[in-house]
Amino acid sequence: MLEEGVKRLTKGANFAALAFEVPDGSPANHIMWVDSDDDHVLINTETGRFKYRCIGRDARVAVSIWNEDDPYDYVEVRGVVVETVTGAEARAHIDSLSEKYTGGPYQNPIGTERVILKIHPTRQRA
Amino acid sequence: MLEEGVKRLTKGANFAALAFEVPDGSPANHIMWVDSDDDHVLINTETGRFKYRCIGRDARVAVSIWNEDDPYDYVEVRGVVVETVTGAEARAHIDSLSEKYTGGPYQNPIGTERVILKIHPTRQRA
Repeated sequence: MLEEGVKRLTKGANFAALAFEVPDGSPANHIMWVDSDDDHVLINTETGRFKYRCIGRDARVAVSIWNEDDPYDYVEVRGVVVETVTGAEARAHIDSLSEKYTGGPYQNPIGTERVILKIHPTRQRA
Repeated sequence: MLEEGVKRLTKGANFAALAFEVPDGSPANHIMWVDSDDDHVLINTETGRFKYRCIGRDARVAVSIWNEDDPYDYVEVRGVVVETVTGAEARAHIDSLSEKYTGGPYQNPIGTERVILKIHPTRQRA
């Protein structure tokens, strides 16, 4: 289960930094939109993206999410991508994220296919 | 040399997410104050902190820095901690960071010793 502070920050229009490992074993760190369900932090990307390929090799990630109005209010979630979802559900999810962050449906071109990364938390730190 | 966009974001009162590897090989991701000199991204921490021990084992890091006024304006710097500085220079540096972010000298207790991490960029992406 996600802790309350993680739920609150992921449900607001706050941003996340997603750390993952690239093939040489060093970290990368991308700023992303973020969401959650009861049990997972959710990130929406594309199947053709570098981060998706990296996470397919090593599913361990660390996500920091900060309050847009107060960056000292933040959480770090370390965890594992335990499930990925493509298809209509992932396409609808990027529209719902876009509604949250921009107030309208997702306008950017989609190069490959949208995919939801479901991150199971192994450590949650406020 | 740091790129102009990296200099601009690190010199402002903007925050950074510092990704590094923990001993089991998975990533961690901490929100930090940030600074730069001409050639390095600078992070100030303490020698007793978990992140300092982790970076002593694997010096490869990834830092995302975003504009406090516009999170879509951000950079990712992947690189290596090539030098650490302790002593009076590191103590003065945390005061200068505190001045930038809070308008006053550093007030938090210092448990061990302040240390500057000098990050040499291997990749800078706006």
